[in-house]
Amino acid sequence: MSTLSDIEVLTIERACERLIYEFAEAIDLRNDAHLDDLFSEEATYARPTAPNSVITGREVIRKTFESRPGGRVTRHICSNVRITVDSAVRAHGVSRVVLIAGPTEPPADPQFGFKADARQLIGEFDDEFVKTAAGWRFASRRGRVILHT
Amino acid sequence: MSTLSDIEVLTIERACERLIYEFAEAIDLRNDAHLDDLFSEEATYARPTAPNSVITGREVIRKTFESRPGGRVTRHICSNVRITVDSAVRAHGVSRVVLIAGPTEPPADPQFGFKADARQLIGEFDDEFVKTAAGWRFASRRGRVILHT
Amino acid sequence: MSTLSDIEVLTIERACERLIYEFAEAIDLRNDAHLDDLFSEEATYARPTAPNSVITGREVIRKTFESRPGGRVTRHICSNVRITVDSAVRAHGVSRVVLIAGPTEPPADPQFGFKADARQLIGEFDDEFVKTAAGWRFASRRGRVILHT
Repeated sequence: MSTLSDIEVLTIERACERLIYEFAEAIDLRNDAHLDDLFSEEATYARPTAPNSVITGREVIRKTFESRPGGRVTRHICSNVRITVDSAVRAHGVSRVVLIAGPTEPPADPQFGFKADARQLIGEFDDEFVKTAAGWRFASRRGRVILHT
Repeated sequence: MSTLSDIEVLTIERACERLIYEFAEAIDLRNDAHLDDLFSEEATYARPTAPNSVITGREVIRKTFESRPGGRVTRHICSNVRITVDSAVRAHGVSRVVLIAGPTEPPADPQFGFKADARQLIGEFDDEFVKTAAGWRFASRRGRVILHT
Repeated sequence: MSTLSDIEVLTIERACERLIYEFAEAIDLRNDAHLDDLFSEEATYARPTAPNSVITGREVIRKTFESRPGGRVTRHICSNVRITVDSAVRAHGVSRVVLIAGPTEPPADPQFGFKADARQLIGEFDDEFVKTAAGWRFASRRGRVILHT
């Protein structure tokens, strides 16, 4: 990392932080196809509620999300994002996430939205990032749940 | 955007992100006058609980906030801020917000503050930013509520 | 601040923002020794639930945290971080924090973690930062609680 300038480090940090928010948005809006733009081809993923079940490969990751049942609205509130740049092509990071979710029935109240479940999950992600020909991507995501309401 | 350097892009992103936090602070602390420093003169705004009621003009926006009743303490917890720079004078962004609020009576407990309402709102903002002679400002804010506790 | 470049300002902002997240992680993971890397030697600190009890000195701060009882899991969700750079060696900032905590007994459910207390605290920090020979550090932290669930 000694060869990277301040601006290079900041730009990499920003790119990786952005991936975290784009991941949240993709799965919350069920834009599962966009996951292909966020993970490297050989990426691995373990979701927070199944931290020991690691799945491998971008296509497998996307298909796993595509196979989720519908009828739920989720919002992942991401915070405490801290990226560490290891080299021009590698970085890692930690972040926290609060998952707020609820059923999509009955329809959303225009004013207050959907009623959330009483149980919210508070979790964390350990991420590794790699720079590919297409830009920065998740090389691995490992989630875990720490607390629930 | 092809003519902007990395540092220019990062600086614009940071300026726009900052507006989002300053807006939250201005309305939470009832420093409504500061809203004049955050919106462009012709800005439009729709608050999350009334997404189809768009109000127009910086002065109208400020007066709308000034006319709110008192007796409430609010904290807008902003997250997942993702700014996209479109040009040297235009940008747009998305972010999430959790609104936690409660009555100001009885007085705050020095240790634990005010008792919050059971209902928290989880919402989003779509923002457009413009660079004015005075710096970056909101050109438009569109809020909506997605979930409530 | 007129002598600082955009990249210098961004780099300082990022360093200070990072301290806020590292502080949260240090106390949540009970890595109290790491607090020595976050505060200046003469730093002062007032925790949110005791805003008028200011303690002074890095060693005192660390020992105060070390003396906390165990048996609790905490996660500080930090947000709305806004750093203002005052000079090449001074900055200040504001941020918000939601504290979610619970007992560590019974053991965590692998899927959903520990059960959180019903009461969450929503607070704020006013921070001052100083650049030391070892890098940017907290010169002072003043916390306060605004709301609780």
